[in-house]
Amino acid sequence: MFHVVDTSIFDRPTLDDLCDLTTVVRNLAKSPEGARDLQRLLPTKRAMLYFTQPSTRTFLSMNNACHVLGIRTSEIRDASVSSEVKGETFEDSIRTFSSYVDLIVMRTPDAGYAARAAALMDSIPRPVPIVNAGSGKDQHPTQALLDIYTLERSFENCGGIDGKVIGMMGDLKRGRTVRSLSRLMRHYERVKLVFIAPDGFEMEPDIKAFLTENAIPFTETGRLHDVLPDLDAIYVTRIQSEHDVDSESSGVNLAPFTIGAHELGLLKETAAVMHPLPRGPEIAVEVDQDPRAMYWRQERNGMWMRVALIATIFDLDQEIRELASRNS
Amino acid sequence: MFHVVDTSIFDRPTLDDLCDLTTVVRNLAKSPEGARDLQRLLPTKRAMLYFTQPSTRTFLSMNNACHVLGIRTSEIRDASVSSEVKGETFEDSIRTFSSYVDLIVMRTPDAGYAARAAALMDSIPRPVPIVNAGSGKDQHPTQALLDIYTLERSFENCGGIDGKVIGMMGDLKRGRTVRSLSRLMRHYERVKLVFIAPDGFEMEPDIKAFLTENAIPFTETGRLHDVLPDLDAIYVTRIQSEHDVDSESSGVNLAPFTIGAHELGLLKETAAVMHPLPRGPEIAVEVDQDPRAMYWRQERNGMWMRVALIATIFDLDQEIRELASRNS
Amino acid sequence: MFHVVDTSIFDRPTLDDLCDLTTVVRNLAKSPEGARDLQRLLPTKRAMLYFTQPSTRTFLSMNNACHVLGIRTSEIRDASVSSEVKGETFEDSIRTFSSYVDLIVMRTPDAGYAARAAALMDSIPRPVPIVNAGSGKDQHPTQALLDIYTLERSFENCGGIDGKVIGMMGDLKRGRTVRSLSRLMRHYERVKLVFIAPDGFEMEPDIKAFLTENAIPFTETGRLHDVLPDLDAIYVTRIQSEHDVDSESSGVNLAPFTIGAHELGLLKETAAVMHPLPRGPEIAVEVDQDPRAMYWRQERNGMWMRVALIATIFDLDQEIRELASRNS
Repeated sequence: MFHVVDTSIFDRPTLDDLCDLTTVVRNLAKSPEGARDLQRLLPTKRAMLYFTQPSTRTFLSMNNACHVLGIRTSEIRDASVSSEVKGETFEDSIRTFSSYVDLIVMRTPDAGYAARAAALMDSIPRPVPIVNAGSGKDQHPTQALLDIYTLERSFENCGGIDGKVIGMMGDLKRGRTVRSLSRLMRHYERVKLVFIAPDGFEMEPDIKAFLTENAIPFTETGRLHDVLPDLDAIYVTRIQSEHDVDSESSGVNLAPFTIGAHELGLLKETAAVMHPLPRGPEIAVEVDQDPRAMYWRQERNGMWMRVALIATIFDLDQEIRELASRNS
Repeated sequence: MFHVVDTSIFDRPTLDDLCDLTTVVRNLAKSPEGARDLQRLLPTKRAMLYFTQPSTRTFLSMNNACHVLGIRTSEIRDASVSSEVKGETFEDSIRTFSSYVDLIVMRTPDAGYAARAAALMDSIPRPVPIVNAGSGKDQHPTQALLDIYTLERSFENCGGIDGKVIGMMGDLKRGRTVRSLSRLMRHYERVKLVFIAPDGFEMEPDIKAFLTENAIPFTETGRLHDVLPDLDAIYVTRIQSEHDVDSESSGVNLAPFTIGAHELGLLKETAAVMHPLPRGPEIAVEVDQDPRAMYWRQERNGMWMRVALIATIFDLDQEIRELASRNS
Repeated sequence: MFHVVDTSIFDRPTLDDLCDLTTVVRNLAKSPEGARDLQRLLPTKRAMLYFTQPSTRTFLSMNNACHVLGIRTSEIRDASVSSEVKGETFEDSIRTFSSYVDLIVMRTPDAGYAARAAALMDSIPRPVPIVNAGSGKDQHPTQALLDIYTLERSFENCGGIDGKVIGMMGDLKRGRTVRSLSRLMRHYERVKLVFIAPDGFEMEPDIKAFLTENAIPFTETGRLHDVLPDLDAIYVTRIQSEHDVDSESSGVNLAPFTIGAHELGLLKETAAVMHPLPRGPEIAVEVDQDPRAMYWRQERNGMWMRVALIATIFDLDQEIRELASRNS
């Protein structure tokens, strides 16, 4: 593994390896010695976090994932501070960053930039890996990984993701996370998807065609309560009003697409409630106390999964497993 | 000690311990070995500096205090970069930060936020300590600590703060530092306070009532020169015109509330001139050369006091004292 | 060496030492052990990067140079975040920074500030070194150093800079780099300079007078192709339209002052093409593939040269040479 631009590089063995390594890393970090061992892995490496689309959560998760491994970080979180104002091309800026560091983590408002950065790296004498932390509407591979990991953890005592019924609710039309997660389901067996969305926010035809081609069954509904009892997990998303073209979000009645105390009562005892965060009113705050609420753990999992991913990029997975077995 | 939200957690033994530990840390840091020992205390810890109210001085002091102990830091210094723009609640943002780090240092323009963050932490399974680096008009506990430490150091050869006459001058009405310091005087014996302020900028009734209740004598005057010879320390503050409601600062004649060469002549040889900085014209630059000018040392003390405080939060005070005795 | 404010502190032995140390550092950093050794040199030091003039490239280069040596960094990259908004003087701000750190790296839009900071440091009890990372139009000493280093490296198999013919092309009137580099040529023997500039962008009289006084021959031309075959190096610069007073850049025909495939054909096989970056259209992207294109290496050299400079400021040059000889 070198660049992580989109989810197409993840097959089932890679996903299983990354999930397994994430758990190893989390456990290792629990002891002071293990945390120290992790820090000693990459103390001489330097990373650049280039976030021209603001994102507190992903930025902090990536920055701290680097810190867990001892990597030093530099950041640009405001495009207006950049040399691009002097008329530099995107490629020249990326090559400049690569001169100083060993890893570039980037997030851009538009699609395709991470792929361009990776292509540039593949053409120069001293390439560094590019990790896409979100580019445009479609690709956010590390979010997809942490979602997979959280599902696997939620089902760790009942056979993992294979064979589960997974609901996705909210703004499925524009939600990058539910789109990526749907695509990754092709690597799992006998999964059924249930899409629950308000009118006008249904999952897009391209994903539905993809699921049909890959023989992944799915159903669509506007009635949450009808399907809730069948779900092993429900992945809730907010209405992404920042992508509105014509204030289409303003007219939505979100009430029927919300998880609260009543909905918890309808949900299986073993089910997982997930959310990529930040959340709006679609999950009531009192749900946080319920053991089925996985979204805060999902967020913290994100950091550990990113540690595992970066460690894998730097070819340290084997070394970490050895540290862990020595430590236990 | 876990959260540091306001000065109410500091009693006399805690203040004395923190002052003592600050001196231990400062001395330890003077030798390369001692500095290295300090760095090795918390290398696997991560802190978040969340400053939605800009403050260069406190930010740098906190950030470098973390660095002294080997803590890695992430920062948000601009609320507009935050996920809050996506409609996240303050509590959800804080819980997010806590997912990634082991300590949150925060500064907000409004009162009460640090207390809310601490209350949230006390309700979740993986709480991290909250250190208030200034919230609103009233609480800035680490500034109060460094002021206490600087007073103690200034009087280290003459019995400490007990029994001293301490003047406070300037914008006493709106000065957070002089208000906090006045309250902390209840932990010291036989202290007398002298408030020196322009008309309209006098110390507020709540503090005066507090002093009376706690039997701490104070006097008020507009005539600096009359009281200067009696003072063991004078704590000067600037007019906080940024809090003006109706440009009330613009009419003030500051000249009689200024320390210059003439005032130094009236001051005791052993007195201390303090200021929380940044300074305006209320202390002339030539005063910097005088051995009684303590404000630059006060600023640097701030970093060391914050090192001591963070070390205490992580329960390292005993270990640091042992390092120091081994080192000397 | 303590402060690095302008290039006047560099004589020939210092330049040679710094170039030599840069190569030592670069080679040392190539092995994991060497990189680890470098990191262990200054782990307890803290630096402040104070950039009130935005500069991604120099900022990243300096920040990562600090990280190579294990130095922890704090940054201000936006003057509006600073306490200066509370009316603090520049000197008080710098003294504040110096309270918390061991090194200040600064960049300002106006001339003279680094010199003022250095003068302040020389007047206080606990001075820290000031490194000028660009102040105003004239001084950017670390850029000058990295340019010297890249020239020396380009000529390492043919006697170094002495005796070479060096072209400088583009906006010579306002280009800080070409002005500094011209001045430094006094430390080298038998160098000839060729200035190639559009009408109105010629090298300023002060530099030409300086060269004449120091007996450094130079010629001026507007015809690149006539002189290209004679050059051992060509230092290309962009038109600095951000300094336009009256849109004087908009009328320039840049085509005759551009390096592309045709120009490469006219250039010696051993010549070096340099550029301080960011580049505009004055060097075609296809030139990047040519072995004579030195500008990307020049950029990366910048980081290593800054490592060498900071190491020298902290008196570590001898220790690094010993590490290197032990390591090889």
